Parts: sequence; C-alpha cells; structure tokens
Amino acid sequence: MEQTILICGIDGYIGWNLAMDLSKKGHKVIGIDNFSRRRQVREVGSESLTPISSFEDRLKTYQEVFNKKIRFVQGDMLNYNFLKNLLRDSKPDTIINLAQMPSAPYSMMNAEKATWTTVNNTIGNLNLLWVIKDSGLDPHLIKMGTMGEYGTPNIDIPEGFFEVEYNGRKDTLPFPKQAGSFYHWSKVFDSQHTQFASKIWGLRATDIMQGVVFGVTTDESKQDERLLSRFDYDGVFGTAINRYVVQAMAGEKLSPFGLGHQIRGFINIKDALKCFSLYLENPPAVGEYRVFNQIAEQHKTVTELAELVKEIGKEKGYNPTIQKIENPRMEAEEHYYNVENSKLMALGFRPTDLSGEIGRMFDDLKPYKSRINRNVIEPRIKWGKK
Amino acid sequence: MEQTILICGIDGYIGWNLAMDLSKKGHKVIGIDNFSRRRQVREVGSESLTPISSFEDRLKTYQEVFNKKIRFVQGDMLNYNFLKNLLRDSKPDTIINLAQMPSAPYSMMNAEKATWTTVNNTIGNLNLLWVIKDSGLDPHLIKMGTMGEYGTPNIDIPEGFFEVEYNGRKDTLPFPKQAGSFYHWSKVFDSQHTQFASKIWGLRATDIMQGVVFGVTTDESKQDERLLSRFDYDGVFGTAINRYVVQAMAGEKLSPFGLGHQIRGFINIKDALKCFSLYLENPPAVGEYRVFNQIAEQHKTVTELAELVKEIGKEKGYNPTIQKIENPRMEAEEHYYNVENSKLMALGFRPTDLSGEIGRMFDDLKPYKSRINRNVIEPRIKWGKK
Repeated sequence: MEQTILICGIDGYIGWNLAMDLSKKGHKVIGIDNFSRRRQVREVGSESLTPISSFEDRLKTYQEVFNKKIRFVQGDMLNYNFLKNLLRDSKPDTIINLAQMPSAPYSMMNAEKATWTTVNNTIGNLNLLWVIKDSGLDPHLIKMGTMGEYGTPNIDIPEGFFEVEYNGRKDTLPFPKQAGSFYHWSKVFDSQHTQFASKIWGLRATDIMQGVVFGVTTDESKQDERLLSRFDYDGVFGTAINRYVVQAMAGEKLSPFGLGHQIRGFINIKDALKCFSLYLENPPAVGEYRVFNQIAEQHKTVTELAELVKEIGKEKGYNPTIQKIENPRMEAEEHYYNVENSKLMALGFRPTDLSGEIGRMFDDLKPYKSRINRNVIEPRIKWGKK
Repeated sequence: MEQTILICGIDGYIGWNLAMDLSKKGHKVIGIDNFSRRRQVREVGSESLTPISSFEDRLKTYQEVFNKKIRFVQGDMLNYNFLKNLLRDSKPDTIINLAQMPSAPYSMMNAEKATWTTVNNTIGNLNLLWVIKDSGLDPHLIKMGTMGEYGTPNIDIPEGFFEVEYNGRKDTLPFPKQAGSFYHWSKVFDSQHTQFASKIWGLRATDIMQGVVFGVTTDESKQDERLLSRFDYDGVFGTAINRYVVQAMAGEKLSPFGLGHQIRGFINIKDALKCFSLYLENPPAVGEYRVFNQIAEQHKTVTELAELVKEIGKEKGYNPTIQKIENPRMEAEEHYYNVENSKLMALGFRPTDLSGEIGRMFDDLKPYKSRINRNVIEPRIKWGKK
C-alpha cells in the first residue's frame, strides 16, 4: 500500500538512496536534512568519493529520470516547532529517522564533538518522539540504530530482548548495551528513549540494529551520475569494506585494525533498502517496540573481509596488499560473535551475494579513482587517554 | 585522609548537606552550582518548605558556626572551559557529581523540559568526563545515579553487573536498565557514559544507584536555621516519604499512587552522607567502575510507608488519613523487588532506624508548618498520551 513517508536525514548515504527507492515504489516521500554531514566530512578534510550533486539538483534529476517528485524541507531535528509543523502538514504514515551523525571517530575527537554528537542524535530523536506524541497522529516510526550498540558480548546477541534466569527467577529484559564510542552510545540512548515512548505513549516503533553498510550504487542511482549518493572512505566517516575497496584501488595497503580478528555484521546498501520495505509492509502494532538485527554477513573477521576484497581486487586488475595497523579504538580484537536475525529472515529477507557486491563496487568506483585522496584514508583519531 | 573535594551541584538537597558534612570532617570542599533547582521549583509554583538562605549567607553562616571555609564558584556543567579551569586550579582528589535535575515529573511535562533535563544531566556529565580526561588528573569520580535506572525487573537487582547464561554460553554484563521517565533515562545515560570513560580512559568511578532520599536536617544544619538545606514536598520535586510527612502535618490525605503496592528503596539523608564518606575512604582502582545500590529500606510498599508515617504522625499529635490516588505515572503497581546491596554493607554501612528518622522529620518541620502550600502537593503531570 502506498504511504506518505517522512525521511529524516534524507541527504545521507542511506537517506538519499532510500528516498529514491521508496518514491519509485509509489510512496509519497518527504525528506528533511540540515546538511550537517556534508559540512562534517569537509571539516575533516575529505569529501565523498562519488561526486554528489546539490540537493536541488538531486531532486530535479530524480524528477527528470523517473517522472516522480520527492519533497524536501531543510530543517533541524533540534527544532521542535519545525518538526511539529511538518507533521501537522504532511501527516506521515511512516517516519524514518536517519538524521544522525554516524561516525564513531568523529564523536571521539574531543568534548565538543562528543557533546554535539550526543545532542544532535539523542535530542533530535527525543524531539521527534515528543512531536509524534503531541501531534495526535499514529505513524510507524522506523529508527536507525546500530549493531555497535550491543558491543561484543560473550553470548549470542538476540533481537533486542532475551530471557534471563538470575538467582532462580526469570524475566525477559532488554539486552544490555555495551557501545564502543560516544556515537554508539548516542544510538543506545535513542533506542532506550524510543522503547520508553512505545511503552508510555503507544508508539509503533521498529528499531534497526544495522550492521556496517557497504556499497556504492543502487538501481536508481545507476541511472544518472547526478543521482549518486555519497560514498565516504576517509578515516573518520569511511567504514571497513568501503575503505578496503578504495585502498585496493589506490594501491594503498588494506588496513584492518590491531589483530584484525574483530567480527562485525555487514550489509550491502541495496539489501538495507529491501529491509526498509519489509518493515513498511509489516508494521508493528500500537505500543509495539520491535528490534531487528539488520545484517547479512556476520561470520567473517575484518581480516577475512580484507582478504576477500584483495582477491576480488586482483580479478579487477589491481594488486592489493594487506597490512594491519595499530588499533586506534579500544575494542576486543578476539571475541565471540553470533547475531540472531531470524525475525528479519522471517519477513522474507534474503541477502545478495557478498563477493558479487564487492566486485560491483570496484566497477562503480572506477570512474572516480582519480578523486581518491590518499592522505585522508588513515585513521588518526585515537580512543585512549593521550 | 583529608582530600580536596569538588561537589558539582552543591546548592541541592544533598549537595549542601554533603558539603557541610565533608568540610566538617576536615576535607577541603569546593562547590559549583548554576542555581537551576531554585529556579525550577519556583517555576512550578512551589518553594522549599524549609526556608533556605542565599548561597552567600549559607557560606558565611557555615564559617561563623564551624570556623571552616567552603569555597563556591557559580557556573554551569555545560561550560567546558569553566570546568577545565576549575579542575586546573583546584586539582580535586575527588569529584562528586550531583549537578542533576532530579525530578521525574518535571522531565515528563513537555518536549522542552524533557530535552532540557537530558542536556543538563547527560551533557553536563559528559563534559565533566572529558574535562577529567583532558586535565591529566586522576580524581575519583563519584556520580549520583538512581535506583530508578533499574526499573522493576522480575529478578533480583544486582550491584550494576550480573552473570547471565544464554543459549549455553556465559558472560558478565551490565544489568539492563528500564527507567521510568526521561529524567531517569538521563541518569542511565550518565551511568553508561561513565562506565565507558572508565574503560577507555582509566577513570576511577563510583556510581551510586540511590534510593529515594528522605529527611530534613543533618548534624550540621541543626546548628543554625540558616544552614538548612532545601526540602521539597510539591507534586513535581517532592518524593514519597517527604510528601507523606507534609501531608500528615497539613491535614491532607497521604496519597500513594494507584494500587500503592509499588516498592522502592529508601534512604535517610544522614545515611546517604555516611555512604559518601565510605566511598571516599575506599576509592576504586584506576579503570575501575563500581556500582553501589545505596538504599537502607526496601521491603515496604509505598502504602506501608504511608501507614508508618500515619502511625508516627498520630503519636506526634496529628490525625493523618490515607487515600490512594490515580497513578499519574506509567509503572508496575504490583511487582517483585529485591535489591542487592552487600557491597555497601561490606564497607560498613549500617542504616539508622526508619521510624526514628520519620519521627524526627515531624519535629524538624514543625516550625515551618504554616509555610505549607496545600495547592502544590497533588501531582498534576501525567505520563500518558493526553
């Protein structure tokens, strides 16, 4: 069924791709953004490897290519009245909150960045929860969390909740969060606030614990270069597979951190988009707060992923090498990791082939190889006490 | 051993009492406050039942009576540079963070109050963590949390951490938090940030999950009326036992919420002060984050506490009655509750007698009976969707 969908953070890596995907499927898409991501990536001396259009050009091009319209309003999630008027005017059936500063290193730079991250992410989401409640509307809120909220416990990671026995009594409790950066903690806080809002206000909420996203193009952005979403590969905003592919193309060493035995959940950008549609089509009940662990790949260490990128890079004509570097983070480098995602699979999710998608990345990025700035790839922000 | 102690939030109910207690014991006490509590209580139309002096007068009187000096600097925890200069100049051995907006109903009034609470409490504490790290000093941080962070799980509440078995594997994890208001969540966030700072920066941290505090005077404030700390009894800032005593004196019905079978941990203000000294004398190791459940009484329902106040009130010449009122909150009114506090007991904590302390409250408050404003006692802020 066609819905009116509000995307908060429509200018981001996922946000723009998702907007096109949902609009093309027939939904009425309205997006907001404060463009902080563009500013921050510039601030750390980098820019998207894919050339990205102004938002105005994106909208115009999208309309040209697909003969559909996406509505955009510039604004900030910290502005209660802005959000209130927006909800009153647009009456969204679904609200997708992606309006988050997404970089762990950025949040660990200094007090100012840590507090900015926490305020932007957590107060933005808190404002949204209040606006939804005060609006009297009953939208389905889809909120973007991260697998990083869980940390790396020595037990299986369930879908948000687990039954525990302690001193002979049982209860079903939220799974304890052990985030690894102030960014990750801000996402934990959002999850906790959202669950609480479901409980007291009857909010219908889907909370996504998403793995690390990788990939460049989607079906829509492949149609026209001006529709490309951003692709960050620098030491602050870039993430594992994306950075490995760029390192392979640039002739730089692929650089897992520390021992390189860390395991994380991963998901391709196109697979991530599929998941959103599954949540839209299968909304939660009133007062239901549900958690999905949105990952496709999970049993590979970051070194194994680097090896895979290296092999595929060779096939693509590059000559990649791997060199582990000192870990700038404080994290377990050798740990158990097993994530339950049966609820997502039960909705019908089937991930695409990892190797195929990595191969496609090399092809997608080939035209932009000369744009790579080697100086920004290395991580410089350290977690520990100096 | 005598220490330099920085108290953040020295103008609060506990803050001022603690400052006098620690100063009298020979510690060098420095306090900061932004006076937001005085403003907020006025804002909700109430004032402290005990007449409270200006902070200037408090300092002067304290010096007069005890021939000791407490240093005070007005400032805000949101101001990084203020905190940074303060730490550089004072080099505290211990920092006690009480600089928190402490009312659950206040945080549930509207979006603005909820966000203000979260920013004040969580960003204030986050700033403090960064300032400690950036200072290069190694103070012991004692942070005020609340038993309300845990909610009312159907299993025993351990001291911060518990060992769980799940799908055949074991781990020791932070106990899941299930707070009941945006205020309580802000305290959860502080706990999570503080634990993380211990892990990555080696911070020595004591986190106090404190029960509901009750009581009026301490050994110091009994010496001179101008040394009295605040005592709030209104529907926003007042808490259970304190409000019951005032209701008993005012001839108003003691009003447990809902079924009145809720169980909470309680602690007398004088007992709370004792605990702080125990933490000071037994500091944590570098990188140690430890949690104490700071409660003295726990096996009584709020109705049983109201009954107790009623009986003691009768002995004191009043004629109290009890009438349960509609619960403005969203909380379990019938639940299991068992809190472990053996670590606190192992430090030598022995609580004073509950009935004796409640009796003393009637005596302490007698001179101020005529100051009671009956109109502010009833809770008016509701948790649910209007």
